[in-house]
Amino acid sequence: MPVFVLENKAFGNKAYVSMNEGLGQVLRMGAFSKETLDRLHWMADVLYPNLKAGVQHITKTAGGLDIKSLIAQALHMGDELHNRNKAGTSLLVRALVPAMLEVASDTKQLAEVFRFIDKNDHFFLNLAMAAGKCSLEAAHGIEGSSMVTIMARNGTEFGIKVSGLGDKWFTCQAALPDVLLFPGFTKDDVNRDIGDSAIMETTGLGGFALAAAPAIIQFVGGTAEDAANYSLEMYEITIGENNIYTIPSFNFRGTPTGIDILKIAETGTTPILDTGAASKEAGIGQVGAGIVRMPLEAFTKAAEAFVEKYFED
Amino acid sequence: MPVFVLENKAFGNKAYVSMNEGLGQVLRMGAFSKETLDRLHWMADVLYPNLKAGVQHITKTAGGLDIKSLIAQALHMGDELHNRNKAGTSLLVRALVPAMLEVASDTKQLAEVFRFIDKNDHFFLNLAMAAGKCSLEAAHGIEGSSMVTIMARNGTEFGIKVSGLGDKWFTCQAALPDVLLFPGFTKDDVNRDIGDSAIMETTGLGGFALAAAPAIIQFVGGTAEDAANYSLEMYEITIGENNIYTIPSFNFRGTPTGIDILKIAETGTTPILDTGAASKEAGIGQVGAGIVRMPLEAFTKAAEAFVEKYFED
Repeated sequence: MPVFVLENKAFGNKAYVSMNEGLGQVLRMGAFSKETLDRLHWMADVLYPNLKAGVQHITKTAGGLDIKSLIAQALHMGDELHNRNKAGTSLLVRALVPAMLEVASDTKQLAEVFRFIDKNDHFFLNLAMAAGKCSLEAAHGIEGSSMVTIMARNGTEFGIKVSGLGDKWFTCQAALPDVLLFPGFTKDDVNRDIGDSAIMETTGLGGFALAAAPAIIQFVGGTAEDAANYSLEMYEITIGENNIYTIPSFNFRGTPTGIDILKIAETGTTPILDTGAASKEAGIGQVGAGIVRMPLEAFTKAAEAFVEKYFED
Repeated sequence: MPVFVLENKAFGNKAYVSMNEGLGQVLRMGAFSKETLDRLHWMADVLYPNLKAGVQHITKTAGGLDIKSLIAQALHMGDELHNRNKAGTSLLVRALVPAMLEVASDTKQLAEVFRFIDKNDHFFLNLAMAAGKCSLEAAHGIEGSSMVTIMARNGTEFGIKVSGLGDKWFTCQAALPDVLLFPGFTKDDVNRDIGDSAIMETTGLGGFALAAAPAIIQFVGGTAEDAANYSLEMYEITIGENNIYTIPSFNFRGTPTGIDILKIAETGTTPILDTGAASKEAGIGQVGAGIVRMPLEAFTKAAEAFVEKYFED
């Protein structure tokens, strides 16, 4: 399966990510119908080589695509970069089109490529995830740091890693997302929280940047104030404010960034995530999307280990 | 000079608009250097035929491009559609690219076209202006209506027309914009307010929708609250709230729409506009951009005529 390769230019580490297939019946959410597999083959045979040629051309002529800059711009255009990537996807298209045209060999294929991307507002999400991974990996392994560098869910368990606590996973049962369901599905169809897209919140985006994306909260029945309040709450459990990613409605205050297990243990407040929900049954795929709060237990386990390592003799 | 043609499908009226040349030394702002004229020739020879082929293809296959829908989406992505058109331009590119590729004969030309559009975040502005004109023209000539259907400035005078007052212009001296200047210019370079882009505010966008575009107000030294307050103030002098154009941070309240000369006469509050400022000297072009308030006199003259026509026997 072809992947995007992103590099953290300051630290030299790289992250790899698959290309976004869209919503619904997608492999990422557990579907594997003929339609799903046919799409993956088209992505490998048509999408990938055309993107590759364009990205190589951009790398040669402009030193590469600055994904962090695209994320920062998208945040000023109503995306929070997890459940809403409409601006990011649009800006990516603008950046890719001229370069891909300059090296194009088959315009019919290019037309297919941009019809596919245009129909999937989430196409940019995977690039944002890899950017998040690049940023956070560089922050892992700092002696004495209580910052969370990974949050992930596998449909059964929720797990985190902490910068100053090595490679140990701190885990507990994954949350059951109470999300807005796609037509035809009920709460009984929803699997426990799943996926590695929690990297977005870990890097100060997604649910943490909801104030920048009121259009999402409208879908799940909330108000613009609810969106703002979610972001405000996340400042209570984070170490700093992002110096690149800012929220227009907060007068360009940086997004809450750097989840601190000690602040979570102290307040009892846990991260909220924008998420997609998968079906319990294999083969069905995505059944809904919305907001889910992470369970406290993994953080308190980590906080106990942190206290044991750094505060007890 | 090639133009876009927009149609108000409900009423059948059409509006025509030139293609946006960008900022700085542009004919629209009074420049006419060789570079300016060369660009116009390129627009006629390369940009126009490629756009034409794509738009005709979209019209044939999808019934045309819905500009009102693009405006509504752009408002949820940080544009107010006068001084900020970054989202509108991005969404337009996404809509055009697949169609233009499907009928492309020369990919090198297409690459030039999309490099040009990508470098000009205001490319969508002219389409939004023609959409505004289409909407407002249908509202003109309603017996008893005190709604403003045209506001325009010619660098010397500011003039308005009112729906229920026929084709008479009500005029006064144009405002002197106190805007953010481009590097190298001073206040002495700024000409009195000029241009027909005031159609954007007349249709409930631009300055009236500033709450949707806090990124603009940051440039002129204001805060997100200032942006919100400008929009809130405009509700005082408008007849209704737009049913299509909504402001996310106001919980998707419709933009203040339909300027009422009677409310202006009563409150003394006049419309604020996002605007570009032109040089006093011919040949220089645009020297800045910012916010400017329309002078009261034209509105009071119109209100007096309205009272005379409808309230006095």
